[in-house]
Amino acid sequence: MPALIFDLDGTLVDTVYAHVFAWQKALQETGMAVDGWRIHRKIGMSGGLFTRAVGREIGHELTDEQAEELQLIHDRLFRELLPLEERRPLPGAIALLAELRDRDVTHGIATSGRRPSIDASLESLGIPDDTVVVERGDVARAKPEPDLFIECARRLDADPAECYVIGDAVWDLLAARRARMLSIGLLSGGYGADELQAAGAFRVYRDAAELHSSLDELGI
Amino acid sequence: MPALIFDLDGTLVDTVYAHVFAWQKALQETGMAVDGWRIHRKIGMSGGLFTRAVGREIGHELTDEQAEELQLIHDRLFRELLPLEERRPLPGAIALLAELRDRDVTHGIATSGRRPSIDASLESLGIPDDTVVVERGDVARAKPEPDLFIECARRLDADPAECYVIGDAVWDLLAARRARMLSIGLLSGGYGADELQAAGAFRVYRDAAELHSSLDELGI
Repeated sequence: MPALIFDLDGTLVDTVYAHVFAWQKALQETGMAVDGWRIHRKIGMSGGLFTRAVGREIGHELTDEQAEELQLIHDRLFRELLPLEERRPLPGAIALLAELRDRDVTHGIATSGRRPSIDASLESLGIPDDTVVVERGDVARAKPEPDLFIECARRLDADPAECYVIGDAVWDLLAARRARMLSIGLLSGGYGADELQAAGAFRVYRDAAELHSSLDELGI
Repeated sequence: MPALIFDLDGTLVDTVYAHVFAWQKALQETGMAVDGWRIHRKIGMSGGLFTRAVGREIGHELTDEQAEELQLIHDRLFRELLPLEERRPLPGAIALLAELRDRDVTHGIATSGRRPSIDASLESLGIPDDTVVVERGDVARAKPEPDLFIECARRLDADPAECYVIGDAVWDLLAARRARMLSIGLLSGGYGADELQAAGAFRVYRDAAELHSSLDELGI
């Protein structure tokens, strides 16, 4: 039986557009405006890689202080724009995770986000405390490096070759390839289907709800 | 010489993600939460069509009062999220429009937005007052109906068969087909290239800057 490793933002919770807009405002506040669509296509990378990519967009590298300031402003704006009580699971996410528990399908969550800022998202999903969750602070390198998924497979005691990664961003799918895992793309993060397929997704579903009703296509 | 008809939001000004997030908050405030990516893929429709599409998402039609309230909340949130002074042209937009003026290339703007809420966007582009701008209030039906583009061609005294529509959303490209115009897609609104091609774009560029440096590909 395969094991499932889920991304969090844009895959299980509806936070991508709040993240995009928080970064857009943070960049504007610090005098480094970047187009919204370019920010959108970078969501899901680690914050460190994200600020390096921003440096490329604006034509010069950010200093460590600038990168840290930017991250802090983003975090503050994100909390203001999307208060904890408005953190919302994507359609089908809660039911899908509940069925995986009921049927003893091995599964975990691996996210480029950090505690405590991901805590409200995890809470909104109503998952038990013993769910395997690997976050940015648990590994040396975040997506598109494979470390988060490899660490999640290790904690699940699953063979990477038997793991499916489920994600909404090309960074999930690239990291899955590098971890020697198959991957499934969801449109719920706002990428187009072709972008996900080109990055290696062998199936693309609209959202967790459609994935839930298609589990047999994965041999589950 | 062909005439160029431009969409505004996401094509010339970087407003798409602020619109998505304003709709997302407005829908949440009125108890009708809709996923961010589904809202994103509806931006660029007229407000009336948008609220009808929202009705499909939430499973029941909105009353006229609900639709109007939703639009008002969106407009307020949009102004709060993206104050006038933060309205920002997309890369290359100002220079492209300036070159079209310099070279006497017939061109205009046709938007599903309404005055006065589009005024700050137009101002940020620094275009002269006599630029042809067709807005929602000028026609009976908005995109994906062809009326905005047909009216723009009429005011430009241009043959629709000689017009190119430049837009970032599939609704621009569908409306262009129905107006018997060729269309060009820009990635600056956050759609994937395949979505734009599938909707009829015969060329796709990153943004106005890349279009500017590729005008010869359009025979201009």
